[in-house]
Amino acid sequence: MPAYKTLKEEACEANLEIPRRGLAIYTWGNVSAFDPDKGVFAIKPSGVSYDRLTPDSMVVLDLDGAKVEGDLNPSSDTETHRVLYRSFAGIRGITHTHSVYAVAWAQARRSVAVYGTTHADHAAGEIPCTGIMSPEAVQNNYERETGNLIVATFRSKNIDPGETPMVLVAGHGPFTWGISAAKSVYHGTVLEEVCKMACLTLSIDSAAQPLPRHIINKHWERKHGPGAYYGQKG
Amino acid sequence: MPAYKTLKEEACEANLEIPRRGLAIYTWGNVSAFDPDKGVFAIKPSGVSYDRLTPDSMVVLDLDGAKVEGDLNPSSDTETHRVLYRSFAGIRGITHTHSVYAVAWAQARRSVAVYGTTHADHAAGEIPCTGIMSPEAVQNNYERETGNLIVATFRSKNIDPGETPMVLVAGHGPFTWGISAAKSVYHGTVLEEVCKMACLTLSIDSAAQPLPRHIINKHWERKHGPGAYYGQKG
Amino acid sequence: MPAYKTLKEEACEANLEIPRRGLAIYTWGNVSAFDPDKGVFAIKPSGVSYDRLTPDSMVVLDLDGAKVEGDLNPSSDTETHRVLYRSFAGIRGITHTHSVYAVAWAQARRSVAVYGTTHADHAAGEIPCTGIMSPEAVQNNYERETGNLIVATFRSKNIDPGETPMVLVAGHGPFTWGISAAKSVYHGTVLEEVCKMACLTLSIDSAAQPLPRHIINKHWERKHGPGAYYGQKG
Amino acid sequence: MPAYKTLKEEACEANLEIPRRGLAIYTWGNVSAFDPDKGVFAIKPSGVSYDRLTPDSMVVLDLDGAKVEGDLNPSSDTETHRVLYRSFAGIRGITHTHSVYAVAWAQARRSVAVYGTTHADHAAGEIPCTGIMSPEAVQNNYERETGNLIVATFRSKNIDPGETPMVLVAGHGPFTWGISAAKSVYHGTVLEEVCKMACLTLSIDSAAQPLPRHIINKHWERKHGPGAYYGQKG
Repeated sequence: MPAYKTLKEEACEANLEIPRRGLAIYTWGNVSAFDPDKGVFAIKPSGVSYDRLTPDSMVVLDLDGAKVEGDLNPSSDTETHRVLYRSFAGIRGITHTHSVYAVAWAQARRSVAVYGTTHADHAAGEIPCTGIMSPEAVQNNYERETGNLIVATFRSKNIDPGETPMVLVAGHGPFTWGISAAKSVYHGTVLEEVCKMACLTLSIDSAAQPLPRHIINKHWERKHGPGAYYGQKG
Repeated sequence: MPAYKTLKEEACEANLEIPRRGLAIYTWGNVSAFDPDKGVFAIKPSGVSYDRLTPDSMVVLDLDGAKVEGDLNPSSDTETHRVLYRSFAGIRGITHTHSVYAVAWAQARRSVAVYGTTHADHAAGEIPCTGIMSPEAVQNNYERETGNLIVATFRSKNIDPGETPMVLVAGHGPFTWGISAAKSVYHGTVLEEVCKMACLTLSIDSAAQPLPRHIINKHWERKHGPGAYYGQKG
Repeated sequence: MPAYKTLKEEACEANLEIPRRGLAIYTWGNVSAFDPDKGVFAIKPSGVSYDRLTPDSMVVLDLDGAKVEGDLNPSSDTETHRVLYRSFAGIRGITHTHSVYAVAWAQARRSVAVYGTTHADHAAGEIPCTGIMSPEAVQNNYERETGNLIVATFRSKNIDPGETPMVLVAGHGPFTWGISAAKSVYHGTVLEEVCKMACLTLSIDSAAQPLPRHIINKHWERKHGPGAYYGQKG
Repeated sequence: MPAYKTLKEEACEANLEIPRRGLAIYTWGNVSAFDPDKGVFAIKPSGVSYDRLTPDSMVVLDLDGAKVEGDLNPSSDTETHRVLYRSFAGIRGITHTHSVYAVAWAQARRSVAVYGTTHADHAAGEIPCTGIMSPEAVQNNYERETGNLIVATFRSKNIDPGETPMVLVAGHGPFTWGISAAKSVYHGTVLEEVCKMACLTLSIDSAAQPLPRHIINKHWERKHGPGAYYGQKG
């Protein structure tokens, strides 16, 4: 059996969720799947449309960015994925899209406050928006520095990427992650829905207030806490 | 014949309307069907996606919250349904979703005024939004207290749940009900459409005025009053 | 051959355009087709869903409101249609829907200014919004008075219903008409698109200005004037 | 083989993308394909719905506006296409639609600033909006003057149509172009998505700032510059 068959299948299937969920048109989004035991991730090839993706077209790279399998060029956002896998322990999938409501918040350069329980069910606090990248960082290595900017944002705001598996890169758009590639694209869909709800909330009341902390915690805990009781066991 | 076959079929079919009408993604909504003669209701199992629902996967509970049939855990919102069945006479179905426009109004914590006849055809007055739940109530039993909050809102505002079969829970989202499970999910769809219309109305004129009472009453009466003449007889 | 076969087929087919074009959910819209030679119109039965409509289920009435064929109750809006056929010479089809953007303008009680050529291609001036109906008129005959209100609005504003085949009834929604039932529902779709464009225009610039008259006239004339050159001849 | 078979097939196929991408309803959009060697372009016939288009129904004209092949009348916007082919070197396809977000910006008469990287990936600067056409120009030759207005806008603002392949005609809507008919309709889809994102951005923050120039340039260069590294080679 080829070395990375399962990993490439997982990456391919998660990429196909992007058009199914309406998260990007044309080729404007990519997902990767990470195998921590082998220290490699499989990612979408650059500029290839979703209807032509196959597991074999995925590109496999190691955490130093060296290509270990695949004939095509990997996504131009590969360096961002690589930095996140090195920095955020425990994540096994990353998704980047240009979904319109998440992009709108990123373009407005605003973190998304927790306006409701839909948000609190999936992220324990605000969805942070990074700052704008400096000219020096852009010139150095734009995609790697995008990863560094995300990591720096989480560290400076003291946000746990396991509790808030999503970010908005200012002026660009969303990155989301999770314990699998499928979960990362699920978080991409959740983020788009939450951003749409938040945008509409502000259009009804531009001074809308975030949820109080005791309700945020309750919703987060009932799904993710030690006594979680949402869903089925086992 | 199994004891609750028809009730579970009715609940299952009504749950399947949620994705058909675009009222929730993933597993973010649930419907229950109530049989007042047997004193039980059938509800969606927690965290199961709609494409895997079958009548047999429904969970049947009595009005004390005891499970009387079913292998799975019931919806985490079951206690809210139970309180509403105990408190609102005559209802036989309840729907909860995270439809985006209804959620936006809930997150803005605003009752929806009767801006037009689409609303008046289905609810005789404003669609109330509850207050925010206290830390004590959240700690006690969050889902049961959600039901209590809805009931208290209707009582304090002197609203008849038979005339206004829908509510917004502040910071959370909509609950709707009706004389059957199918009717409750119909009301969930109506509420989303009415909330979208109201949101757009405010975006055109932020000082838009509600309909005068004589037109609200006319529309309500022609569909629901003693001399109703909408639709076919019998 | 049954007396009104063609007319009922025309009415049925035009009603089926309502869900295809997304102009109403459930049973919230109706179309009628008028035969001026026979002095009758065929209209959707009240409260029947589109997927159960057949030509035979259409109801045929004369211009005095007497039913001349059909087993079912006609649309509750029948009296409005009847008044418009009696008052607006040359129209042969009428459509009423609850399409969301048109309803939003109606709920905001605002006429739609000619912000662009899409509008000018189909209506030579603003799309008027009526005033709110008086309690006396509602009590008299609500649906007939809705027709009277539309006619009075066009007369007081000196608008030619042949040049502006659409209106917003304040707090309710749109009525559109045309030289056939099909054309009336086409105008219902156009109105919804124009109302969406106008709503978004105001969201970008709340002080947006209408088109100058020389461009409005040019677009109207190239499609509808004596020297019209849009489309194919014959 | 007929003289313009390939060109008409290319034009037809690109026109069919308009309804697939939701860029126009009914007949409200047209695409042309240009062959610089033969000095002719094939364009949609006027007023014909997309589901009835065939390569043979396309109309072929030379750059003086003389019809060289085809039985039908060409699009009423043909003169605008002709002026652009004469004025903008290197373009081989043009698309005009009434897509709603692009129309909303055109109706608001606002150029679209570069709020994010989705925009910068496809246009190197703001998407310009023309001024309103004078009564004299409308009276002269409206469609030809629309082309002249677009060209004058690019010249007065010193914008390279190869770097910004799209424009908003004030009060009307978008025209886009590219190195093929397919690429022009791709740009029509991109423009609609960018206009939607920009509209939502302003709804979140009406004082949102454009991207700084160093990020705009980076995104443009990585896709279109001499060292472009997006996509696959060859």
